[in-house]
Amino acid sequence: MNTLLSSLSSISQLTDSEQLQKYTADSSGYPPALPSIVLRPANTEEVAACIKACAAAHKNYTIQGGLTGLAGGACPAEGDVVISLERMNKIEEVDTIGGTAIVQAGVVLEQLQQAVLEQGWYFPLDLGARGSCQIGGNVSTNAGGNKVFRYGTTRELVLGLEVVLPDGTVLNMLNRVIKNNTGMDLKHLFIGTEGIYGVVTRVCIRLFPKPEAVHNALVALASFEDVAQLLKEARGSLAELASFEVMWDNYLKAAAIATKRTVPFEGHYPIYVLMEVEGSAYGLQDKFVHFLERQIERGLLQDVIIPQNEEQAKNLWHIRDGVSEIFRTLQYFVAFDIGIPLKDMQTFIDEVNQAITDQYPHAVNLFFGHLGDGNLHILTGKLKQEELEAVDDLVYQLTAKYGGSITAEHGIGRIKKSFLHYSRSQEQIQLMRSIRQLINPDNLLNKGRVVD
Amino acid sequence: MNTLLSSLSSISQLTDSEQLQKYTADSSGYPPALPSIVLRPANTEEVAACIKACAAAHKNYTIQGGLTGLAGGACPAEGDVVISLERMNKIEEVDTIGGTAIVQAGVVLEQLQQAVLEQGWYFPLDLGARGSCQIGGNVSTNAGGNKVFRYGTTRELVLGLEVVLPDGTVLNMLNRVIKNNTGMDLKHLFIGTEGIYGVVTRVCIRLFPKPEAVHNALVALASFEDVAQLLKEARGSLAELASFEVMWDNYLKAAAIATKRTVPFEGHYPIYVLMEVEGSAYGLQDKFVHFLERQIERGLLQDVIIPQNEEQAKNLWHIRDGVSEIFRTLQYFVAFDIGIPLKDMQTFIDEVNQAITDQYPHAVNLFFGHLGDGNLHILTGKLKQEELEAVDDLVYQLTAKYGGSITAEHGIGRIKKSFLHYSRSQEQIQLMRSIRQLINPDNLLNKGRVVD
Repeated sequence: MNTLLSSLSSISQLTDSEQLQKYTADSSGYPPALPSIVLRPANTEEVAACIKACAAAHKNYTIQGGLTGLAGGACPAEGDVVISLERMNKIEEVDTIGGTAIVQAGVVLEQLQQAVLEQGWYFPLDLGARGSCQIGGNVSTNAGGNKVFRYGTTRELVLGLEVVLPDGTVLNMLNRVIKNNTGMDLKHLFIGTEGIYGVVTRVCIRLFPKPEAVHNALVALASFEDVAQLLKEARGSLAELASFEVMWDNYLKAAAIATKRTVPFEGHYPIYVLMEVEGSAYGLQDKFVHFLERQIERGLLQDVIIPQNEEQAKNLWHIRDGVSEIFRTLQYFVAFDIGIPLKDMQTFIDEVNQAITDQYPHAVNLFFGHLGDGNLHILTGKLKQEELEAVDDLVYQLTAKYGGSITAEHGIGRIKKSFLHYSRSQEQIQLMRSIRQLINPDNLLNKGRVVD
Repeated sequence: MNTLLSSLSSISQLTDSEQLQKYTADSSGYPPALPSIVLRPANTEEVAACIKACAAAHKNYTIQGGLTGLAGGACPAEGDVVISLERMNKIEEVDTIGGTAIVQAGVVLEQLQQAVLEQGWYFPLDLGARGSCQIGGNVSTNAGGNKVFRYGTTRELVLGLEVVLPDGTVLNMLNRVIKNNTGMDLKHLFIGTEGIYGVVTRVCIRLFPKPEAVHNALVALASFEDVAQLLKEARGSLAELASFEVMWDNYLKAAAIATKRTVPFEGHYPIYVLMEVEGSAYGLQDKFVHFLERQIERGLLQDVIIPQNEEQAKNLWHIRDGVSEIFRTLQYFVAFDIGIPLKDMQTFIDEVNQAITDQYPHAVNLFFGHLGDGNLHILTGKLKQEELEAVDDLVYQLTAKYGGSITAEHGIGRIKKSFLHYSRSQEQIQLMRSIRQLINPDNLLNKGRVVD
């Protein structure tokens, strides 16, 4: 340990146990643990030096970004070295002609959004944690969010990466061009793999022109079948469709109560969709209203609320985003973040409801999600603490039955590692493990996450 | 060889040297070579059996799709076993609710486009070779084409894959959901890697609603700077923008002559863009015309041609697609397919012109490309046959200078293997090679392509 410290004397270090408290856990609820030291490199060379020092000292090390992860990926084991990228917070370059930017991994998402907006461009990755999550973490977890439907996940927004490998090699893949078919696109080894193959240090991102106008509508439908039909119609008619957020009735009610808002509709309907279009102002509102009217005429929509101002629109989104307020009323609960093929969605939901009711009659399931992407969230509670793992297992088993993904957004991290087999075959897990052994053979980097 | 044959007696085989002629080369101009046998498996199990038999007999084998590749990737070495996927031509499943399909690797792209159209969906991958290229080849080369700007390359259109590894393992990754963050997205090992890590046998693709309306315009501009500005404006105003094809003046003239059409404009301009929007009919034409008018008013567009019917639109596209007609007039020539950051595009072009003129004063450079994606094509000719490689090298050196991609679409294959270092660092090449050694250690599969 002393050797480690002295070889890195020029790099910012924290060892005071009070200062270390900040680095003991992420947002997942995974048990906190005290690292032995926090290294805070300010550039790629310093990251490589930290990694080489850990390798030489054979010390396990955990990489940390904004600590907003929900799968325990950034939680250290007791005594780990933590390498925090928080000082790597420079936006190095914004190409205002081509619409790309090169940024360090520790840049906070909201700062990035703001900085490019000031230069006339738009970075469409957006999620609740925007104020503290860092772009390196977004890349490592392939973050999704509210606008995936239009712009893709982080994977589609990343043109190139710089990564430091566990042997200290700096892999500069800061590709700036959209199309590059020169062999394997190696960035995919590091996007969504939660830091088990290397440490993302810099990112080249794609930018988009800033949308001039945004319009919302909350619509009520009679069935999930109608929702799927609406989605197809909307995809065909509204190239500007950016969000398609589905809420089942019980979620809408729970969220309205938890956020102290009135339920938006007077009538009762089984299912709702909050739609958002964003794009050029010219003709967009007219097109959106025309689309909604046509869907009313053909009977697909039972009722529609079009907010008349920004305040009203925010109110609708506040209900959609009311999850954290619901959390407080549901202790203990399990929050699922799964992907299910659309055609099986309602059957899956019915089976989950049945299975939970049979075994945990005191619990309810609240369903909502970014359904444009097949991404379903479920909140299941109240449960007893000792029931949580069995409920996880039950829902993941049903997810596997429909060929779904046990995590569409949050990742595997430490928390879902034992459930990975529900979404990935033994052959796939073996291949991921082989690549880990190839690139990260000592397994000092982010040990205990995803596969090892 | 006899052991190989007998162990595969139930699988379609061709050994007659006349029949084998069809399998000696792709469309790249790479020298043809006669395989010893062509195996034509009809399903995944048969592909695995072929691969295992080649491994047991220690025979090199080459995978073939529609033989439309332009990098020599499907060209066998003399005496290779060829495994042709042409009999794996079933569309197994179209999910008309979620908009996905599962197809075998040997399905011809155009048949796939047609089949899903008949079910009310649209598969937007489209390229000149559509009538014979196969989806497995599209995946292996990460095919691009005319609509990448709107829908992405093949990579973005593929949800999941089934792959047979060189040890015969069938890796079923036929994911059907858009968001899946369960560890590494392993399909990226096989997309765009030209079959050096495994054989794609089945593909799960994303479908889109069929666009109701398509509108085109050919516009004339004063400079590439104006083109970049137009692209930014169009991205902001036209969510339906599907193609943004740039042609420099000398390309437009050469193509008009070669395709026996009149040059579309009476005036002379340095640069042209063929734009296409596709989407819902409602308001689209009005929006497109309004956009073009606004760009004329602000002086960005010098002239505009809006085709008045499908015939006229086809004529414009015929000029854009006139490459193969130009080819005939330019023997010998080099055709480049590179990616260059937009901001450096005109400087790069000036440097290429200068360098070619200095050394090959008899040659011209024709520039055009899918500039919405930073993808520039160059035709350089006439050249002497012995000059071709030096011209390649010269242009790739300049590409490297601007951090560009030496192949944006066509891939490395056999033909560009020695130039790979211009786009990828030694560290990247070493990592690609390590993965090859991990997954394809005997290097019997597609030996001599990309890296080995």
